[in-house]
Amino acid sequence: MSGSLVIVGLGPGPIELLTPAATAALQAATDLVGYETYIDRIPKTIFSQRRHASGNRVEIDRARHALMLAAEGNKVAIVSGGDPGVFAMAAAVFEAIEVGDPAWRELDIRIEPGITAMLAAAAEVGAPLGADFCAISLSDNLKSWQTIERRLRAAAEGDFVIALYNPASRARPRQLGRAFDLLRATKSPEAIVLFVRSAGTSESRVVMTVLAEADPALADMRTLVIIGAAATRLISRNGRRPWVYTPRAEQAVVR
Amino acid sequence: MSGSLVIVGLGPGPIELLTPAATAALQAATDLVGYETYIDRIPKTIFSQRRHASGNRVEIDRARHALMLAAEGNKVAIVSGGDPGVFAMAAAVFEAIEVGDPAWRELDIRIEPGITAMLAAAAEVGAPLGADFCAISLSDNLKSWQTIERRLRAAAEGDFVIALYNPASRARPRQLGRAFDLLRATKSPEAIVLFVRSAGTSESRVVMTVLAEADPALADMRTLVIIGAAATRLISRNGRRPWVYTPRAEQAVVR
Repeated sequence: MSGSLVIVGLGPGPIELLTPAATAALQAATDLVGYETYIDRIPKTIFSQRRHASGNRVEIDRARHALMLAAEGNKVAIVSGGDPGVFAMAAAVFEAIEVGDPAWRELDIRIEPGITAMLAAAAEVGAPLGADFCAISLSDNLKSWQTIERRLRAAAEGDFVIALYNPASRARPRQLGRAFDLLRATKSPEAIVLFVRSAGTSESRVVMTVLAEADPALADMRTLVIIGAAATRLISRNGRRPWVYTPRAEQAVVR
Repeated sequence: MSGSLVIVGLGPGPIELLTPAATAALQAATDLVGYETYIDRIPKTIFSQRRHASGNRVEIDRARHALMLAAEGNKVAIVSGGDPGVFAMAAAVFEAIEVGDPAWRELDIRIEPGITAMLAAAAEVGAPLGADFCAISLSDNLKSWQTIERRLRAAAEGDFVIALYNPASRARPRQLGRAFDLLRATKSPEAIVLFVRSAGTSESRVVMTVLAEADPALADMRTLVIIGAAATRLISRNGRRPWVYTPRAEQAVVR
């Protein structure tokens, strides 16, 4: 079979954060498949490939479409925001392969990593992920809310820094408030909470607060929420937003 | 103060995985500071900056050196493998600022994110990080082993996929075996374990096994270890290494 599929991470958006390997993968493709918002980010002036854009809530269908195009002999690139392996298209592609045409398993498939949202968000504010951390998607479209609660509880128990992906959408306005309530039962009210919207783009916006005062209405589909560990702290600056960081040790190394 | 400091993520190694933004930050610098292995990765033919290379186990001194050079008016880039915010230089820089010369707080400081090891490792094998996951450094140079055990236990309790950074070094040969023993007490013996060495480079090497059989001697300083969640599974292929992925749902979506 001569077709191939590469699952490409577009990073946060700006072309400056797209790896040369990802750019080369897009250029080598005959067909680009993806959510229309991501497909629209790829400049037509540079990439003249056939485009197959689709809506957001059909990852598995999009994955099947890409696999079918590849099985027909095309060189397909399926695109993802951020990194394809983190709450994005790669898992959907393998879900489709697992239950799909056995011939799909023999396709030449490759993944090009990208800068995922939590890395871009952390870079905007300092080094909040400087110690052990976890990443949890608050979307309960595919997993139960019970599972999400179990993981939030475990993350608090382990004193991990917590990066929350998909904190809210129009269809899911209540999850983040419920997550904050759950965390308030076990974490300090002074735990630092960051809302970073459109991280890594020219429109990025940061709100810093503490768990006791965190307003879930500040989050939308383009927001990443970071909740600090016990050691996460601020470094104040004159007239500028403080830096936020988590020291590598439980206590910062003072010597 | 006219000096500046940019904390640059070099990614896994190959120039194809270095973002254009990181390349531009290196080019704009007058001085490059970093662990010699990372400094040596930056081709002298393209980057003619002054170089200040140092040994590996002095992150905080290296951070201070970079801050002093910046405070003197230089445009300094301090480099990190992977992403600077994930078990790398960014936290060390902020630790140095917190207890250092108050003038350092007013410096122009910026972070350029990079592809961190777990993203490169995941891309080599499929989509093991496809659901909720956590990242834990097994180095107990700066935190207690008790804290590491607490986090491993919490990660197992929450059924997270677990990415282990710094699983072993010559000075710390025993941590990974102890981590496996701890996880064996709570996780399935069939949980998938991946050893990915030099992920994202031409020398990458993957070993797939299960928790009951995982041999800690397979890991060294350049290895990232991934331990699957309950749902993490293999997709077999003819004559090739199976894909590994974690479905987004607790159960793969079959329809």
